[in-house]
Amino acid sequence: MSQALAYAAQSPTSPLAPFTIERRAPGQTDVVIDILHCGVCHSDLHTARGEWAGVNFPAVPGHEIVGRVTAVGSLVSKFKVGDTVGVGCMVDSCQHCRPCADGLEQYCDNGFTGTYNGPEQGTGANTYGGYSSQIVVRESFVLKISHDAGSLAAVAPLLCAGITTYSPLRHWKVGPGSKVGVVGLGGLGHMGVKIAAAMGAHVVLFTTSARKREDALRLGAREVVVSTNADEMAAHANSFDFILNTVAVPHDLDAFLVLLKLDGTMTLVGAPASPHPSPGIFNMLLKRRRLAGSAIGGIRETQEMLDFCAKHGIVSDIEPIRMDEINTAYERMLKSDVKYRFVIDMASMEAAR
Amino acid sequence: MSQALAYAAQSPTSPLAPFTIERRAPGQTDVVIDILHCGVCHSDLHTARGEWAGVNFPAVPGHEIVGRVTAVGSLVSKFKVGDTVGVGCMVDSCQHCRPCADGLEQYCDNGFTGTYNGPEQGTGANTYGGYSSQIVVRESFVLKISHDAGSLAAVAPLLCAGITTYSPLRHWKVGPGSKVGVVGLGGLGHMGVKIAAAMGAHVVLFTTSARKREDALRLGAREVVVSTNADEMAAHANSFDFILNTVAVPHDLDAFLVLLKLDGTMTLVGAPASPHPSPGIFNMLLKRRRLAGSAIGGIRETQEMLDFCAKHGIVSDIEPIRMDEINTAYERMLKSDVKYRFVIDMASMEAAR
Repeated sequence: MSQALAYAAQSPTSPLAPFTIERRAPGQTDVVIDILHCGVCHSDLHTARGEWAGVNFPAVPGHEIVGRVTAVGSLVSKFKVGDTVGVGCMVDSCQHCRPCADGLEQYCDNGFTGTYNGPEQGTGANTYGGYSSQIVVRESFVLKISHDAGSLAAVAPLLCAGITTYSPLRHWKVGPGSKVGVVGLGGLGHMGVKIAAAMGAHVVLFTTSARKREDALRLGAREVVVSTNADEMAAHANSFDFILNTVAVPHDLDAFLVLLKLDGTMTLVGAPASPHPSPGIFNMLLKRRRLAGSAIGGIRETQEMLDFCAKHGIVSDIEPIRMDEINTAYERMLKSDVKYRFVIDMASMEAAR
Repeated sequence: MSQALAYAAQSPTSPLAPFTIERRAPGQTDVVIDILHCGVCHSDLHTARGEWAGVNFPAVPGHEIVGRVTAVGSLVSKFKVGDTVGVGCMVDSCQHCRPCADGLEQYCDNGFTGTYNGPEQGTGANTYGGYSSQIVVRESFVLKISHDAGSLAAVAPLLCAGITTYSPLRHWKVGPGSKVGVVGLGGLGHMGVKIAAAMGAHVVLFTTSARKREDALRLGAREVVVSTNADEMAAHANSFDFILNTVAVPHDLDAFLVLLKLDGTMTLVGAPASPHPSPGIFNMLLKRRRLAGSAIGGIRETQEMLDFCAKHGIVSDIEPIRMDEINTAYERMLKSDVKYRFVIDMASMEAAR
């Protein structure tokens, strides 16, 4: 075992503060990683504040991790000391169910092990995430970061925001000729726009803030629609092959469902704390439209996404912060005051003790 | 033009009563049909009572029509006098949009013409349905009923209840090896069970009435689950490839969504007058599940369905009624007191004037 510096919430009401955690001694298939950067996801905040059921405290959030390998177990073959690697939302799964066999560990029948808030396979122990100086992860849940991936801090958010948007875009076969809507321009939405555009789709960004127009066009959207403008919305009725809805606060789904063409799908990647207004069934019946969900992505697909992003020069738009700025960052995130992801520079951990 | 005997609602509050309507003189592509039987669909009742928006009165319901050809226009090639034919929910569509070109007239971009409540293409006139002695229909919306289709009265409900269940089962590729749930054992549900079983699926019928168990097994279900029994429901968690939900009153969709396996779909074919409780998004995210709608079926697919049913010896379970029993039948339908479809014997029309 080794000790690692971390930032933890000791209870739902306490701010994140310095905390020393223990990392397991690496097993034969483990990779030991010094964390360089960790993105700040909204899930981190929900967890730190106990807003979701079943949060274990102390909680060390963080699942958009980029780091450098400092040691490997004797059976590790894919990584060596010095490699730049990533860790996303999962650090383990049962590895024997059908979804795991199909590379869909995120849908493991027995529940994957979250990078934080566990439970660890076998022991059931709580897991501690990326707001820390070091992490020990099973080889099969470690991702390769290529030399041409770009700024490592800006790569970190790909591990959650990137794969969460890439996976449904791939699953629903977005490509050249597709007309794709992205609802919401936040951490997820801005990645969705970049990735869908790189896939060759005609991307339309939906936002409630007209002031996001220029940014959306810069990120790759071909059109921007202010979703509160009924005329702008009506002009797109029955025209979308696919809509990626990244908004995690309750809103009117019908306003977007009616924009789908025959057999079109709207996939939700955010789950609001209270339900959306119930969608109108007639809108689904009359064009055989579909409402679906999607959760992150499998390990194989995450590697594919990282390679895709490296090839297309895609990283996240980020604002780097120090570890001791995390509580302020949470407050700003609640006001959507970030373009578009905070990323913690873990070199600041030592100073933040 | 010719006069036809009919039963109509003159207003949302008046019972159905005798009414004489005019049928157009057959055009070159029209088929004139003496109606033998007409099934009674819940949509008929909604329309007659003005429960849906935009009902035109007088209203002559009926879109599960079986009859005999008595005359054909000069350009009609598929039908001749004496043929047994069917007419379903549509009598026309624009015929030039993409869905129409693809044989998906039910999703016509310009709106199909309902067999009743129009509007007629071109004129915009109200259309009158199958509660009448005769109907004149464009050839391309007339279906062939084969000699071995079975009792013609029992074939009539295939034109709406049959195709409404057949189409989504086909679209979502139900077949041998599929585990399929059918929610609700009414007019639609009992057809869904028969058709899914004939397609080779393992069919599980969900009902709130334990007394429907024997009937469901007789119709082809392999298992029956009382949906109010939490233990019975839990035993089927994460196991269905597809669920056909035929219940048109608001109910808890989550109870069924959680029974879908990874990438499973629940298709709704009924639209309740008030919304369902809003479905939980986490249930969709965590298994990439899908909620979809489906509306009747195209003409080509309806013919395929009729041929499939003839081949597999499938007809509806019906209770024949006289035309003058229609108002009583509506009251019984509201209490689900029918196994499983009323069908009007149109020979009773003359006596019912």
